[in-house]
Amino acid sequence: MGGDFGPSVMVPGITAALVSLAARPVRFLVHGDETAIEAELRKSPTTRAVCDVRHTSLKIAGDEKPAVAVRRGKGTSLWNAVQAVKDGEAQAAVSGGNTGALMGIARLLLRMTGGLERPALVASWPTTRGVTAVLDVGANIECDAAQLVEFAIMGEAFYRAVHGSAGSRPTVGLLNVGSEDQKGHEDVREANQLLRDIDLDLDYRGFVEGNDIAKGSVDVVVTDGFTGNVALKTGEGLARFFAQEIRTTFSSSILARLGALLAMGALQQMRLRLEPPGGGPFLGLNGIVVKSHGGADATGVADAIRIAYELCASDYAAEAARNMERFSAALQSVKAAMETSQ
Amino acid sequence: MGGDFGPSVMVPGITAALVSLAARPVRFLVHGDETAIEAELRKSPTTRAVCDVRHTSLKIAGDEKPAVAVRRGKGTSLWNAVQAVKDGEAQAAVSGGNTGALMGIARLLLRMTGGLERPALVASWPTTRGVTAVLDVGANIECDAAQLVEFAIMGEAFYRAVHGSAGSRPTVGLLNVGSEDQKGHEDVREANQLLRDIDLDLDYRGFVEGNDIAKGSVDVVVTDGFTGNVALKTGEGLARFFAQEIRTTFSSSILARLGALLAMGALQQMRLRLEPPGGGPFLGLNGIVVKSHGGADATGVADAIRIAYELCASDYAAEAARNMERFSAALQSVKAAMETSQ
Repeated sequence: MGGDFGPSVMVPGITAALVSLAARPVRFLVHGDETAIEAELRKSPTTRAVCDVRHTSLKIAGDEKPAVAVRRGKGTSLWNAVQAVKDGEAQAAVSGGNTGALMGIARLLLRMTGGLERPALVASWPTTRGVTAVLDVGANIECDAAQLVEFAIMGEAFYRAVHGSAGSRPTVGLLNVGSEDQKGHEDVREANQLLRDIDLDLDYRGFVEGNDIAKGSVDVVVTDGFTGNVALKTGEGLARFFAQEIRTTFSSSILARLGALLAMGALQQMRLRLEPPGGGPFLGLNGIVVKSHGGADATGVADAIRIAYELCASDYAAEAARNMERFSAALQSVKAAMETSQ
Repeated sequence: MGGDFGPSVMVPGITAALVSLAARPVRFLVHGDETAIEAELRKSPTTRAVCDVRHTSLKIAGDEKPAVAVRRGKGTSLWNAVQAVKDGEAQAAVSGGNTGALMGIARLLLRMTGGLERPALVASWPTTRGVTAVLDVGANIECDAAQLVEFAIMGEAFYRAVHGSAGSRPTVGLLNVGSEDQKGHEDVREANQLLRDIDLDLDYRGFVEGNDIAKGSVDVVVTDGFTGNVALKTGEGLARFFAQEIRTTFSSSILARLGALLAMGALQQMRLRLEPPGGGPFLGLNGIVVKSHGGADATGVADAIRIAYELCASDYAAEAARNMERFSAALQSVKAAMETSQ
């Protein structure tokens, strides 16, 4: 029922995901209003065949206050999707609904792993060199230094499991307005100090700037949820703007139209390569929960489903658990250091 | 002497600016090491003819702490450029040097206009609908609600004077992670309340998100310097990434190469339209000071010079003064409201 368009986009999203997942085995529990969902499912027998509909008439509105939504959330489609993960009925939950409510309910039902405080939302950006993971992109609006250090730990484990290649260690950078140590506000300077001083077994490269995201200077870019959300959405807006400019450019003259016809194959490839991420997982939970963008179309929803599938298929959970164990002692010492320094 | 490359880029920047300003009358006072500057000027007699070199061997390093740089800055090339504006010898100063030092020295020598506290750095982004002005993009790392309100006032005056058209009022938005009133941290929520409650005679449209920048949903986007700097640099990185992807795409096959040849004119036009801003002015000062990006090439420096020229040619100063007068009482009431609420 989530996202700006509910079942009319979420169900076609499943159909699109089946195409991109090809013959790989997957089944869906579809939570929400049975009538609305079945109406959509009737359009695709292939999709119908892999879906079980779990009816509920309760739902959470996109603009509902997260705290209120979590309190009254039991039995809503969003809640039921996360509950299915908790009960072991589903391996992952994908939702296009209220981000704050999804985070709150996921945290309540699944609990945080290791000694972590709060989940972080991670986005995987296409870059010159492959993919950069940016976190947090909106789950934690205000973050202190200890949280930024946690994001570095979670982001590194995520990258290693999902985007990493055997034998290579992900590199980690902290987003700031300059690369010199005295730049930025107190929280980023303190997090920088902690990441340098405490032995976390991370390949930490210090401060990076906004342009390093697309450059792929590091594999994991750590930032607070306010800045990360603005950066992600700014990038999405620009990607859409560029796509539109390309369309305008290639229909501006007969010569340009001819050029576009000739280059169509290559242009199509480029469009796919530049597609901004359709969603991203919450990290740090005991379970896989992927947020699909509220405004996403079927392709975006399919992308979020694909990310959930890859997380299940990868050894992300085991990798994250191993990392958390390895980092747990260090994390405690970070917190102790934070308390002493205050 | 500023920027990552000193005279070897700043002087070619003047040459490029002369081309883009065409026959419009302009003269340059070039501050810095005479030998290095003259060596560059010898390469272009046209540029030589419009430049007076003002020798100084002192300069401020890019990574020097701003507070230190301001204290010991007298006689450096950066200081002398701003001093020339103060003395009425120059109508505008353009620098590629240390942003914090430039801001501090400009504030010390030129002083703030009206009742404003601190200058803001503004960037003019190309968008679907024209240009969006974003401020602050790096001068003020931490901003309270009152400062955000000041940015709204300054940005609106800037837009009206430089990008505005007669009879239309610039629209103003406040950058946040969502459009609902309860979204974001305390400072943006408080600034939103102030901008709604106090009669500033601004066409204030409430919260906007990152994707609204490229969409051009509002003319002026207000944010703190940390977020604005990250958003600007993220956008620049993406613009460079897209340009590179287009080059790769159009050399990926013979058909694509042919297509590129046919569409070359249109592609060239697009490249120019998407060029990120080469610099931006500090607003709120009694005088025009434009920061050219440290990493800018000659085209970027030329762009910063063009912005300075346009600010001089427009009635920006008069417009800002008129606005400030109009807003002065309101500004005082904002501050009073802030103090009462604390």
